[in-house]
Amino acid sequence: MGTADVSDVQQLLDEALNLKADPQSAADIGAGLKLGLVFLNPSLRTRLSTEMAAKNLGMDVQVLNMSSDAWAMEFEEGAIMNADKAEHIKEAAGVIGRYFDIIGLRSFPGLKDRDADDEERIFKAFEKYTAKPMLSLESATRHPLQSLADLITIAEHSKKKRPKIALTWAPHVKALPQAVPHSFAEWMLAACHELHIVHPPGLELDPSFTDGAIITHNQEEALEDADFIYVKNWSMREPYGKAYEGGADWLLTEDKLKQAPEAKIMHCLPVRRNVELSDELLDSPRSLVLDQAENRLWSATAVLRRMIIELHEKQGRTVGA
Amino acid sequence: MGTADVSDVQQLLDEALNLKADPQSAADIGAGLKLGLVFLNPSLRTRLSTEMAAKNLGMDVQVLNMSSDAWAMEFEEGAIMNADKAEHIKEAAGVIGRYFDIIGLRSFPGLKDRDADDEERIFKAFEKYTAKPMLSLESATRHPLQSLADLITIAEHSKKKRPKIALTWAPHVKALPQAVPHSFAEWMLAACHELHIVHPPGLELDPSFTDGAIITHNQEEALEDADFIYVKNWSMREPYGKAYEGGADWLLTEDKLKQAPEAKIMHCLPVRRNVELSDELLDSPRSLVLDQAENRLWSATAVLRRMIIELHEKQGRTVGA
Amino acid sequence: MGTADVSDVQQLLDEALNLKADPQSAADIGAGLKLGLVFLNPSLRTRLSTEMAAKNLGMDVQVLNMSSDAWAMEFEEGAIMNADKAEHIKEAAGVIGRYFDIIGLRSFPGLKDRDADDEERIFKAFEKYTAKPMLSLESATRHPLQSLADLITIAEHSKKKRPKIALTWAPHVKALPQAVPHSFAEWMLAACHELHIVHPPGLELDPSFTDGAIITHNQEEALEDADFIYVKNWSMREPYGKAYEGGADWLLTEDKLKQAPEAKIMHCLPVRRNVELSDELLDSPRSLVLDQAENRLWSATAVLRRMIIELHEKQGRTVGA
Repeated sequence: MGTADVSDVQQLLDEALNLKADPQSAADIGAGLKLGLVFLNPSLRTRLSTEMAAKNLGMDVQVLNMSSDAWAMEFEEGAIMNADKAEHIKEAAGVIGRYFDIIGLRSFPGLKDRDADDEERIFKAFEKYTAKPMLSLESATRHPLQSLADLITIAEHSKKKRPKIALTWAPHVKALPQAVPHSFAEWMLAACHELHIVHPPGLELDPSFTDGAIITHNQEEALEDADFIYVKNWSMREPYGKAYEGGADWLLTEDKLKQAPEAKIMHCLPVRRNVELSDELLDSPRSLVLDQAENRLWSATAVLRRMIIELHEKQGRTVGA
Repeated sequence: MGTADVSDVQQLLDEALNLKADPQSAADIGAGLKLGLVFLNPSLRTRLSTEMAAKNLGMDVQVLNMSSDAWAMEFEEGAIMNADKAEHIKEAAGVIGRYFDIIGLRSFPGLKDRDADDEERIFKAFEKYTAKPMLSLESATRHPLQSLADLITIAEHSKKKRPKIALTWAPHVKALPQAVPHSFAEWMLAACHELHIVHPPGLELDPSFTDGAIITHNQEEALEDADFIYVKNWSMREPYGKAYEGGADWLLTEDKLKQAPEAKIMHCLPVRRNVELSDELLDSPRSLVLDQAENRLWSATAVLRRMIIELHEKQGRTVGA
Repeated sequence: MGTADVSDVQQLLDEALNLKADPQSAADIGAGLKLGLVFLNPSLRTRLSTEMAAKNLGMDVQVLNMSSDAWAMEFEEGAIMNADKAEHIKEAAGVIGRYFDIIGLRSFPGLKDRDADDEERIFKAFEKYTAKPMLSLESATRHPLQSLADLITIAEHSKKKRPKIALTWAPHVKALPQAVPHSFAEWMLAACHELHIVHPPGLELDPSFTDGAIITHNQEEALEDADFIYVKNWSMREPYGKAYEGGADWLLTEDKLKQAPEAKIMHCLPVRRNVELSDELLDSPRSLVLDQAENRLWSATAVLRRMIIELHEKQGRTVGA
């Protein structure tokens, strides 16, 4: 799911806040339903929070680490499977779809073929062949459970109705996906927040996610009077998937926040300390990173609750919650 | 368990079909019982379906991936353990036996020592040292939960009381065990189906599993008027564990089914597309492969239910189900 | 937890024995509480028994294999994280602390920096950054759940109020931690048992754990008339973490027990057969190793029950159990 599926971000946010305030209100809504969590990539927060959220809703949960529990999958249509891929997505996802009512999938982009990633070939193949409702645990282009958790965190800490939010690029040692900044931009704009995006030239994001944001290369200007500063690395879109060379001075430090005395610092984690963000900031009261992570529980709870209600409605059942 | 343990295949099949029709009929029968699932090899269907079946029956389930969660085991009697094996099967299985009421084990054959594999040394060592009822999640010589699922699938799709079934060897890039074809033959014959087995010369199966089947090297003849065609690779018994060289033309395609217009196609999965079976067949209405996988849930449910009832009887309890 | 946290070893032992005799007495005490089990190292007994104990108490349990499910952690304060460690303990543990009520951690010593290990830097960092009650699943210096299980086993098999216990060093192919012998000595002494420790010169343990024990290099003398003989390898403290060279003749065999006709043999497992302990001993009625492993269930149950009661008391709830 992306905001494409969420026409009412504000309503979903309210539901998440209500569930956090009263977790018992949806305690058994998922009883009898099976959730399969399929990881094609490693995970800490997503793994723990999504399983916990689902169990809190009464669901049965099973986790599959595809490559270590099972084997490598083939995604190519028409492939002659005489190499190292042991099972085609058609069968692997087809079978998983037979077992579960809802399927969560983590599928990072390959960062080699931009079209394949932008088209979400892996996620969509799972969606097609499982033929079941899919929950994104971060896909090639989006990380919606993170963005909703970010929105919850901002709602809890904002003193303004329309805070100024700055998304600032940060250096990193690896080439990272654009899923988090894309999703973040999409959700902040859908929530009608004032969003500034700042990065070195050459790191432009996909405009389809950022339309409505103020985009600049001037970090000082973007951070000025910001209420929330979201720090995140991403790799280049052109040439696609290449790590940006240089930019070490984009490390965010307290020193850069002289004109943003109220700014809270956000990051989706894992964060590279003293590369993306300085220790002094992460260890200061400015930091909301653990609150964001904790709110992953409530974004997952809110989204799973909606998916459960939709399933019940399809089955003609009415639900109390 | 193999058919050796199942004197009444038809009765077990009926139980499985009844459980599929009315899953609630055995919903809590396993409450308070502990199932340990030990994987010495990777697994997708078996892992997901067996855990789900057990939970549906009310059991507690824990999964142990022996090599990644723990360490390598020594199986040799009298070994001086000064190399890389950290724990002897006597202790590892002994401990597991203390924790669980029923233990599921996946233990593929080594394909190096035919006697060791044929004698099921690993599975039997677990059986001996756990001293608990054991559930095969595919062992060196058999895959009974798969074969029962195959039987369920045939029962659901057969228009005849005694369908013609052809088990046809297929090429593969790796040397695979004979467990699936052995088990399949054993169960189909126990169910009194008409079984034809066809393969290139040199790929003879163990006659103790195939006695009663019509065995040939002529694929065209074996497939003619078949109701069900089971496609499967296996490696040679002599020399043991060697992959068959050649045989690429044994790939099953629609073209080969001109004399079998009604034939449904089966495979235990994972399948190598366009090596064992063509895309056109797997993607056609002939294919039952996902139904077979789904029925793994019900073969596991039926077998676990029987094991639970046996445990209760030993404990002098009567059970409603 | 070590004995530092347990002023009343005898009382805890009684609780464990009572729980074993009447498992239902605490069946739902942990309902609604979340236990996270974090493994930085492999595990068989600890993994299975702790999860099972927690579920028996009604807790929700989630397991995280840090390196295979997630990624490598940085522990250095002030590190510039531009290498292979993806997340700092401050965030990783901080997040885990937000999700769970109690956190179990297995963190073996590195065996390179004695001060770091002796100070329990990893365990204490988790304790600090999770800010939640921590359960040791074996840390750098202690393995309390094992030692309590050992105490239960001795209580069940001892004919004397104050049995003679000999802890005898055994050879091994790897350099192993001192956590088990340290913990064992600490708990046996806290229980006022007569403890003899015997090892080749150069393998002295940390006196802070062994004060009160009779320490010798004469294996024959130490074993004489022993009621329980605990066999265990450990590496050197000086030079730190070095495997002892030689000592093959410290392998314990039946032949060495002529003066200890009543002695029962104990080992925490996994054991190297015919390196640490002979087959004849492990396969004889002298061996208690499987009983020890089974009692891990009851040491975990007793300790988790106490932690749950403490949590309830903090929250002002009274508990029936």
